Amino acid sequence: MNYFSSDFKLGILGGGQLGKMMLYETRKFDIHTKVLDPSKEAPCKISCNEFQQGDLMDYDTVYNFGKNVDVLTIEIENINLDALEQLEEEGIKVYPPSQTLRTIQNKATQKLFYIDHNIPTAPFSRFAHTSEIEDSISNGGMEFPFVWKCTKFGYDGQGVKVVRSLKDLDGLPNVECIAEKMIPFKNELAVIVVRNPSGQVATYPVVEMEFHPEANQVEYVICPARIDEKVAEKANIIALKVSEKMKHIGVLAVEMFQTKDDQILVNEVAPRPHNSGHYSIEASYTNQFEQHIRAILDLPLGNTASKVAGIMVNLVGAEGHTGNVVYDNMEEILKMEGVTPHIYGKKQTRPFRKMGHVTIVNDDIAKARKIAEQVKGTIKVISE
Amino acid sequence: MNYFSSDFKLGILGGGQLGKMMLYETRKFDIHTKVLDPSKEAPCKISCNEFQQGDLMDYDTVYNFGKNVDVLTIEIENINLDALEQLEEEGIKVYPPSQTLRTIQNKATQKLFYIDHNIPTAPFSRFAHTSEIEDSISNGGMEFPFVWKCTKFGYDGQGVKVVRSLKDLDGLPNVECIAEKMIPFKNELAVIVVRNPSGQVATYPVVEMEFHPEANQVEYVICPARIDEKVAEKANIIALKVSEKMKHIGVLAVEMFQTKDDQILVNEVAPRPHNSGHYSIEASYTNQFEQHIRAILDLPLGNTASKVAGIMVNLVGAEGHTGNVVYDNMEEILKMEGVTPHIYGKKQTRPFRKMGHVTIVNDDIAKARKIAEQVKGTIKVISE
Repeated sequence: MNYFSSDFKLGILGGGQLGKMMLYETRKFDIHTKVLDPSKEAPCKISCNEFQQGDLMDYDTVYNFGKNVDVLTIEIENINLDALEQLEEEGIKVYPPSQTLRTIQNKATQKLFYIDHNIPTAPFSRFAHTSEIEDSISNGGMEFPFVWKCTKFGYDGQGVKVVRSLKDLDGLPNVECIAEKMIPFKNELAVIVVRNPSGQVATYPVVEMEFHPEANQVEYVICPARIDEKVAEKANIIALKVSEKMKHIGVLAVEMFQTKDDQILVNEVAPRPHNSGHYSIEASYTNQFEQHIRAILDLPLGNTASKVAGIMVNLVGAEGHTGNVVYDNMEEILKMEGVTPHIYGKKQTRPFRKMGHVTIVNDDIAKARKIAEQVKGTIKVISE
Repeated sequence: MNYFSSDFKLGILGGGQLGKMMLYETRKFDIHTKVLDPSKEAPCKISCNEFQQGDLMDYDTVYNFGKNVDVLTIEIENINLDALEQLEEEGIKVYPPSQTLRTIQNKATQKLFYIDHNIPTAPFSRFAHTSEIEDSISNGGMEFPFVWKCTKFGYDGQGVKVVRSLKDLDGLPNVECIAEKMIPFKNELAVIVVRNPSGQVATYPVVEMEFHPEANQVEYVICPARIDEKVAEKANIIALKVSEKMKHIGVLAVEMFQTKDDQILVNEVAPRPHNSGHYSIEASYTNQFEQHIRAILDLPLGNTASKVAGIMVNLVGAEGHTGNVVYDNMEEILKMEGVTPHIYGKKQTRPFRKMGHVTIVNDDIAKARKIAEQVKGTIKVISE
């Protein structure tokens, strides 16, 4: 099929910031795109060829949207999978396949998948309802602390809570969930794997998520990770195994923990371009969005190596600010070396909302790290 | 002014491939854009916030378009300048200023500008009509060979002809023109200078246009130029002088000849992102389009250095092909290392039409040069 002709149509489910960054690449290759998103203010609304407002969880909406495209991809996992399955049966190329998404959409299913395929992951228990956890504790089947995770619709840290005592269970929704053993880890790592339908596979260098020492929140994504080469190799092998078993097509971000004794445990995966790969726009030979497009169109994959070291800082809404967004001190960070801000185009800020990110690139990773800290301390996402 | 708010509007005159690449950057910074172009199939039609179809040479169209924006820029020089002057008087920020464009729009005026400011350029004569050249030759005032250039609307090699004998004058339009001494040169070089209203100035590394040994057509733009450091320094100083005297704002591409005896002569300039800077998208810390946006918004300029060596190959329509475009062997070039195609989105090809470009980046410029040759020999822009 000639992707570079106007006869070809690529459908994208979801029109948020990931889709927006994907569209830079479809524009570069002049690929005709059609986007479905529930919001009429979706960042993807411009830059795509056709935009449709609609519910991503609604069977008919997704089915009707998808049946008129040649290849269908996603930028968010919460999609009506029955519609995707039907589209696959009718010959539409859905990448990642519905099967991959089904494994991932439910966190319990995802964890069981790792167990079934002998992929190292933190021990966990599955509960049909949160209320059952208390029984398990009194029976000695569970110990504090653990991480409670809602199995469905967990996205961007919603539906996750560290439980240190019975009291912490108060107020949690009484839904299907998992309770995962809390693993003290040295580092949180991620590897982006890319795979095309012809079977070509490649991995990006291991990245490191550096946490704020007090807030326990990811502050920086650093590429390459400042870890031992053997640990990086281990992480790479495990990510490749996850990719192989999941039979995904496109980009797959594999998030992992490096434990105190240098074990690698898989935390969770995202079968799409991911926050941990945003650095690649400025730092890599082929960024994750172009790579995803290459993969789902079954084009040859690009070079995943880096030109320079890259660090990403998320721009999230400051606490105490809700309303029309203002990027305070933007000009100050533009003065700093190798700094590129990405503004997602959401008009309203609220505390911790992802509003954009900033990439810092430099030949010298230590310099980049210092500049990243200055960026973090300078720009503020506030309201008018 | 807060550029990163929806109250701000950036107007772009012209909606071709340069505008299209500029829009990647306005999207990245979430800057509200409005584009004017005569074609309803302009590559910029999507990705801008507002598109208007209209004549760029019509006073009323340009004036009415411009009076509703805060900053107005161009991606093509042939614009109604009286409208721009009026807009400037009314307080619209027009970058580059109409004065810069007035100097450039007429090639005789541009050449005289170089003479007036003691900027080295090839000797030339100005003629009100092409027919006057013959008299000048018979009077001994002109010698073959020379380069005939129409003073107006010269763009992309149209309106330029090498004249080796009287016969070559046949068929040329009888218009205002210049006849320029043909300078045997070693290299054609270019330097991109960027300047913001606050007076911050920066230059990109000198690039080299490598010509096809027989066809006398630019085949590759190579950054950095493979020339002596002293020559590069000289080119840089002259480009800075042109920039200073022209009082442009934004990006200015200064094209120069390196003569056999290592003199630098200014050929011509373009006060906008330019073909000679396309390599910067993949190779530079700050690409020329982002840099242009930073400059015209009076933001701090970005780093102009390169991360890696970059080579650009233009994708022009193959001879003998007119009609719906096909990019033959696209998949083959995507297999090559560090290769990024840019497809401008013009649906129809014709011989020598600029349809896209390909960038090749590599740590090693010699390797990049080899791959560029493979790219050039592989991809073909043909019709269906």
